[in-house]
Amino acid sequence: MRTGIATVCLSGTLKEKMQACAIAGFDGIEIFEQDLVTSPLSPEDVRKMAADLGLGLDLYQPFRDFDGVTPDLLKANLRRAEAKFRLMARLGMDTILVCSNVATASIDDDALRAEQLAQLANLAGDHGVKVAYEALAWGKYVNDYEHAYRLVDMVDHPNLGTCLDSFHILSRDWETSHIEAFNPDKIFFVQVADAPKLSMDVLSWSRHYRVFPGEGQFELAKFMGHVVRAGYTGPVSLEVFNDVFRQSDVERTAVDAMRSLIWLEEQSAKWLAGTDGAQDIGAALRRRYPMELATLPKVNQPAGFNFAEVKADDTAQLEKLLGQLGFAFEGRHRTKDVQLWTMGQARVIINEQAAQHAEPAIAALGFDVDSPVIASARAQQLKAPVVARKVQADEEVFQGISAPDSTEIFLCQGSPDGTAAWTHEFGEGLEHASAGASAVIDHVNLAQPWQHFDEAVLFYTSALALEPQPFAEVPSPSGLVRSQVMQASNGDVRLVLNLAPVQQAQNEARKTYQEHIAFAVDDLVATAKAARDRGLEFLQIPANYYEDLDARFDLEPGFLATLQELNLLFDRDADGEFLHFYTATVGSVFFEMVERRGNYDGYGAPNAPVRHAVQYDSLHRT
Amino acid sequence: MRTGIATVCLSGTLKEKMQACAIAGFDGIEIFEQDLVTSPLSPEDVRKMAADLGLGLDLYQPFRDFDGVTPDLLKANLRRAEAKFRLMARLGMDTILVCSNVATASIDDDALRAEQLAQLANLAGDHGVKVAYEALAWGKYVNDYEHAYRLVDMVDHPNLGTCLDSFHILSRDWETSHIEAFNPDKIFFVQVADAPKLSMDVLSWSRHYRVFPGEGQFELAKFMGHVVRAGYTGPVSLEVFNDVFRQSDVERTAVDAMRSLIWLEEQSAKWLAGTDGAQDIGAALRRRYPMELATLPKVNQPAGFNFAEVKADDTAQLEKLLGQLGFAFEGRHRTKDVQLWTMGQARVIINEQAAQHAEPAIAALGFDVDSPVIASARAQQLKAPVVARKVQADEEVFQGISAPDSTEIFLCQGSPDGTAAWTHEFGEGLEHASAGASAVIDHVNLAQPWQHFDEAVLFYTSALALEPQPFAEVPSPSGLVRSQVMQASNGDVRLVLNLAPVQQAQNEARKTYQEHIAFAVDDLVATAKAARDRGLEFLQIPANYYEDLDARFDLEPGFLATLQELNLLFDRDADGEFLHFYTATVGSVFFEMVERRGNYDGYGAPNAPVRHAVQYDSLHRT
Repeated sequence: MRTGIATVCLSGTLKEKMQACAIAGFDGIEIFEQDLVTSPLSPEDVRKMAADLGLGLDLYQPFRDFDGVTPDLLKANLRRAEAKFRLMARLGMDTILVCSNVATASIDDDALRAEQLAQLANLAGDHGVKVAYEALAWGKYVNDYEHAYRLVDMVDHPNLGTCLDSFHILSRDWETSHIEAFNPDKIFFVQVADAPKLSMDVLSWSRHYRVFPGEGQFELAKFMGHVVRAGYTGPVSLEVFNDVFRQSDVERTAVDAMRSLIWLEEQSAKWLAGTDGAQDIGAALRRRYPMELATLPKVNQPAGFNFAEVKADDTAQLEKLLGQLGFAFEGRHRTKDVQLWTMGQARVIINEQAAQHAEPAIAALGFDVDSPVIASARAQQLKAPVVARKVQADEEVFQGISAPDSTEIFLCQGSPDGTAAWTHEFGEGLEHASAGASAVIDHVNLAQPWQHFDEAVLFYTSALALEPQPFAEVPSPSGLVRSQVMQASNGDVRLVLNLAPVQQAQNEARKTYQEHIAFAVDDLVATAKAARDRGLEFLQIPANYYEDLDARFDLEPGFLATLQELNLLFDRDADGEFLHFYTATVGSVFFEMVERRGNYDGYGAPNAPVRHAVQYDSLHRT
Repeated sequence: MRTGIATVCLSGTLKEKMQACAIAGFDGIEIFEQDLVTSPLSPEDVRKMAADLGLGLDLYQPFRDFDGVTPDLLKANLRRAEAKFRLMARLGMDTILVCSNVATASIDDDALRAEQLAQLANLAGDHGVKVAYEALAWGKYVNDYEHAYRLVDMVDHPNLGTCLDSFHILSRDWETSHIEAFNPDKIFFVQVADAPKLSMDVLSWSRHYRVFPGEGQFELAKFMGHVVRAGYTGPVSLEVFNDVFRQSDVERTAVDAMRSLIWLEEQSAKWLAGTDGAQDIGAALRRRYPMELATLPKVNQPAGFNFAEVKADDTAQLEKLLGQLGFAFEGRHRTKDVQLWTMGQARVIINEQAAQHAEPAIAALGFDVDSPVIASARAQQLKAPVVARKVQADEEVFQGISAPDSTEIFLCQGSPDGTAAWTHEFGEGLEHASAGASAVIDHVNLAQPWQHFDEAVLFYTSALALEPQPFAEVPSPSGLVRSQVMQASNGDVRLVLNLAPVQQAQNEARKTYQEHIAFAVDDLVATAKAARDRGLEFLQIPANYYEDLDARFDLEPGFLATLQELNLLFDRDADGEFLHFYTATVGSVFFEMVERRGNYDGYGAPNAPVRHAVQYDSLHRT
């Protein structure tokens, strides 16, 4: 698959954008006209630079408001087009995007439109230019991709084809299977963009909220599958207008973009193989379709958390908290300054190798996968940065990658009984407490920088096969917190990505980048009582909360009293019940203990505002 | 008018919110349930604190999903309501908001709803509570304020009334005049919110984009006028869910909120007087309606800019730029370290009293008003902070207020011939160059911090009577720049408020907080040539721009060559033409020279991306 990206997706100058696209590995780019018009680079400079960088100049865009106009306007439009065709010759470009008229169309007549497009195609032919005509979702008369194709088909000129843009098609819920009936020689270009499903006017949605494939909710694999079945072999190019990407680091966004295409290519291949009834994806596809589709090393969803690691200069507070929660100290690593603490199958590593005065923070997460080597190869093909850890000859080698928020993600060998072989590297000579309470890591909650939220969703979707759930917004005293759960379908791995309000990020970085690790136990009340007896500092829940709880749930008075006495929070839905409590925060980390009753699948969302408010209050009081 | 605000409008804890509301001068507040539930303050604490602060506790809210339910659910809902009524007794509150059922209603039957609301009213009566029933715009069966009132009317119980919320009514475009027919004894509460007109689902619109009155596009004065005509005399209370306000400084947002109500009160009085055909607003209204409406000192729109002031530690670069542009140095002030530079009626003060190493920045703007004293009194009643300037006995006293971005705004005595008396305080003994080119300040462009953009719109609307125009969004290499023009209807005062992307604000504060002053001249080409001859450093416009200009406008070749030679930008619309150029930037300031031909009323918006790109490029190269 030939990969492309429109320069409008990225921040910076044309030069910076082109360099970033080359670094990220794109085959070609679309030049968004404004990026050229505002650039000090001459067309010849751009042509040479693209050649030097090994980037194809695949599409010049957009040319607006051409068709369905009065004769006077047509004349001016043809003049305007010819100026652009000449410019394209200097750039060495041969394809231009013409989008359906939004502003100046006054005549709704397909015969007239075809006649005007034919004139444009003739002129384009004289200049060796190919015109890719696209239906904008908000085009005045032409806003349906099949309509645009019918016009192209009517004109039937070698220099006129259509451009298919997934946003304009999927935002209107058009049926995409009809693409398969198109003549592939008349599909000149394919643009892809994803988007969250929002109910707003399609123009604002398009201009501000597009995201890269895998970061939204469109059925892009199906769309691409139909495109491939039609016999299209040209570029598949990203065109994403997004307020955040426009502001983000250009090279990083370009890599995020490239990852989305690599992932989409695999998903499209899987969709094709699935609907074709094929077993071996790669081989089946190579025989059947002209477009070559690369696939990735296949991974299943992780089976569980292998461990969580917290790091600090002074680890005393962390040790104290874990001990009070009921974790057992399993000793130190035989060669590194790290400790292992466990409670059942919940393993927490305390890493003492932090910079001086570094406050406690979540540093790494381990996931159980079928094959660490394959999972790591997949992540690397998805351009995940590799994390190297020094190991001795006889120690387990961890395959590590870096997540968008810099958390280190380790791909570990899972085991049927939930144990981890590397634990033997800890506590040599120490007698291990055998039993201990049973517990697992239920979920981990990571704060995400606002520039990298969508990137993180794609990262965990593509590299770890986690599935994004519908997002929630939780009020806190310093703004709404957007919360995105990524989980394995069976719920054995749950990762919560929290996007803190911008103000927090700006003014109170340390204070509000709070993250936590939650452990599930069988009997939360007993766990809480034991923790209280060991002197644990619980997050203090206001009395008002329990009054409200009683009003909402009509709880048995003794049970309500127990909840309040132990600072436990409670939720109930149609599937079951949820009990949980939080510890005080050390550095940017706190812990949570939960008990899931029945099939409760959530995280106590109605209680999250209480947690935020109490944490805010305690931070602002100190 | 009794003023109120819901605690959900503000950031912080309940305690912080209550303190801020008291400081801002509100009569009462609505307690948003979540703020109480998450607070460590007991109901008795809140009651005492409100009493100490002199704040009424006017509404407890919201009580959700009561009506139209099955008998089982009704029973649970009445139990839930009774718990809240008891809580209200402890708080000393007597009114609760019950909003129409969104989630649990299963029976669409007015008789049943009335019967259930009657049961609620009876229970409320037992506890001395008044229930204000409100139609949510997205209520499952009840989403129209007249429907809610019909139900209240059917039940006809002293403890059941309605709550009118401007958002729920105006977002649905309901006709508001029907409010006048309501029995005022059955209107228990009135909530006001403004909003920009967005086409998106009404729930998201409501939860994220509400703003304070005067910051959006709703016809709130008319809404309030009908409420007053109905005979309502209760609280008028803000209920604004806004993602930015939730993150902003609580005291500042509370003052912004209070300003919006003071302004709305005046606008409502004006609307009433206007539709009543009354001359003397205050007196007419006092005779006619039970609600007392305070009005403000009246001001007309400013007639022009009196001056602009730039401030720096080292002013050499500013002096050089102004001299090259054709400004004449009119000397120094007789007692202060400031210089006066003029070009026709465009007056620029260079203030040398900046902090050490402070880079050049726009510090103050003077506006010509009919009466500085009255305009200042109005601004102060609108809670604008006063700016004091030291003056000698025989010098003109400037009435100054501080704008939300800290620019000092001076209200100056205008004169019919556009001169300013205070200029005689400058250049004693100096012979003033009489003629010089004619010029005026055309517009000033100020960068706004993202937290205070809406506040700034209301500030200039209410204090200076400027009118917000539809906003534009301009692409720049580091993100979209939101641009809001505030202007006098005749165009003699034009202020452009620019909201820079968040990323810029975070990472490159100084670099991108660029602001500028634009001067209008009669002959821009001549002005540019003279400036060039004086060695002015123009902002360099790329050659690609002129090619595109030619493609778009088919300009006469000689004219196009002149534009390119002088780095002039060009725009044309149905009303006329616009020529302009920019200087290089010094500190955070640059200057623009413009020529308006015909009735061109814009700012060359199509050229703004060029300006942003070139400025970005020059800053990132150095």
